[in-house]
Amino acid sequence: MAVYTDISEEALAEFLHQYDIGTLLSYRGITEGVENSNFMLHTTVGHFILTLYEKRVKQEDLPFFLHLMQHLSAHGMACPQPVMRRDGHLIGHLAQRPAAIVSFLEGVWIRRPTVHHCAGVGQALARLHLASQDFILSRSNGLGVSDWRHLWQKIRGQAEAITAGLEDEIESELALLEQTWPQHLPQGVIHADLFPDNVFFIAGKLSGLIDFYFACNDMLAYDLAICLNAWCFEADFSYNLTKGHALLSAYQTVRPLDQQEHEWLPILARGAALRFFMTRAYDWFHTEISGQVVKKNPMEYLRKSRFFRQIKRADELGLLS
Amino acid sequence: MAVYTDISEEALAEFLHQYDIGTLLSYRGITEGVENSNFMLHTTVGHFILTLYEKRVKQEDLPFFLHLMQHLSAHGMACPQPVMRRDGHLIGHLAQRPAAIVSFLEGVWIRRPTVHHCAGVGQALARLHLASQDFILSRSNGLGVSDWRHLWQKIRGQAEAITAGLEDEIESELALLEQTWPQHLPQGVIHADLFPDNVFFIAGKLSGLIDFYFACNDMLAYDLAICLNAWCFEADFSYNLTKGHALLSAYQTVRPLDQQEHEWLPILARGAALRFFMTRAYDWFHTEISGQVVKKNPMEYLRKSRFFRQIKRADELGLLS
Repeated sequence: MAVYTDISEEALAEFLHQYDIGTLLSYRGITEGVENSNFMLHTTVGHFILTLYEKRVKQEDLPFFLHLMQHLSAHGMACPQPVMRRDGHLIGHLAQRPAAIVSFLEGVWIRRPTVHHCAGVGQALARLHLASQDFILSRSNGLGVSDWRHLWQKIRGQAEAITAGLEDEIESELALLEQTWPQHLPQGVIHADLFPDNVFFIAGKLSGLIDFYFACNDMLAYDLAICLNAWCFEADFSYNLTKGHALLSAYQTVRPLDQQEHEWLPILARGAALRFFMTRAYDWFHTEISGQVVKKNPMEYLRKSRFFRQIKRADELGLLS
Repeated sequence: MAVYTDISEEALAEFLHQYDIGTLLSYRGITEGVENSNFMLHTTVGHFILTLYEKRVKQEDLPFFLHLMQHLSAHGMACPQPVMRRDGHLIGHLAQRPAAIVSFLEGVWIRRPTVHHCAGVGQALARLHLASQDFILSRSNGLGVSDWRHLWQKIRGQAEAITAGLEDEIESELALLEQTWPQHLPQGVIHADLFPDNVFFIAGKLSGLIDFYFACNDMLAYDLAICLNAWCFEADFSYNLTKGHALLSAYQTVRPLDQQEHEWLPILARGAALRFFMTRAYDWFHTEISGQVVKKNPMEYLRKSRFFRQIKRADELGLLS
């Protein structure tokens, strides 16, 4: 996050009266996530994360996110567990913002993932997909294929400033994906943002997943395509086939892909690369400079997009039939 | 702080091998302080703060700061206690920066201090002054009266942009303070930055002092003058005499001021107001916009400076003889 909103100790103490988690010992703003203000709380009962939802997260989506975390926790996934208020609700208000408290999850995120970590995240992703199968709420993907053109219209005027010829290149890639994007693959709840900073490990063992604020209903294999983008490239933007194989194989030990998912994986990976290119390019041009939120260069995803465009079959990504 | 430098989990795990504090469970960047990068660490042994010293803190001053905290802890002051490395040193290196680990201090800082909190900080400041009497290291004040002109020269060209007539006003106040600044008052180690965000309370009781990175040797009563600036004004910049009285009286229950300190307190308070005006004005014009570090408006200290200029005697600040 970032801390966009400070909280007075008086307001926080009063807010905590709505919960059964003891009295406040300390709280510190933490520099994690980019959408919300997050605080680490210590109370006489334990450690928690307090999140104030800033305007980038839609208030009407909060029940989906929080009940999903509750559902996944109840199904044995290690993820932040929302703390219920005394009135039975999961969402309250603090500093004029929607606010929630979740359990604190131990673990560190891996700055330079190895093949071992890729296997860990593949397996956890498949478990998430199975554990959310009977989750009753749903939310459409706000950054799905049908939203990319809208984003593109806001940035295409600046595309040539990123690199010459980019406007035509992206326009043609977007048009192709819009025409070919599959509609019939198995659907479910996807995390949709399972980057290394959202996956914790302790001593090499995956200890939990966080940040469900992009979660939505979409094709399960698209979530896997996002992970290939997020976990399987090296610092020089080369695709590490061993990592891809590890991630995909570990996923399939829990949830085997069907033939259609297998065939469409290269297109889904192209789509995921374009989606992150779009949002990063948008943020690049539209976000203020800040010491707290690091702007990510959109070129990284342009290079990944170009890589995936050369891929014809999923085995070139490490998926064995 | 802020987090200016990220740390990889590998580098951190290796760094922790130099300490006897168990193995890493988690670490999070925290948004506290403005000079350094701070992380909250959880290990199998407990909770700690890891600080990476960024360039604004001089490396040669670190032994003073860390040994002071160690000295104060050993003398019963609640403050962060540096953790000794296996090799006996307090300072190591991480991510190409000097780094230290200190104990985590519970407590919250008070956004809107009451008279009660002012009394608490007055007493704690006096205890700090007594506890550091036999501390053997010393450090001169890098933001003392002799440094203000240097700061002033960097900002005076922009003074009229703050408010009309300000250049003459500050020049004349600075000249007066340079001429009259006392040299003979009791000296010792001062905190020099004991603002509300550096003082923790739990359930109304002072639980600790943090951030000793401006500590130095100077007049003890000047530290008190800084606290009058930091704690005894209301949001409308009016001086709260009851708070001033509470802070000064509580201080004197532990360390009574002598007659000279009594007489010079109004001048010291003027000096402290000018010192914070100078650094805030400098930062106002010279710091980049950032979501993480909030720039503080120098006008606040101009108004405090003007208030203290009207004060002739310490009893007008709440100091009873």
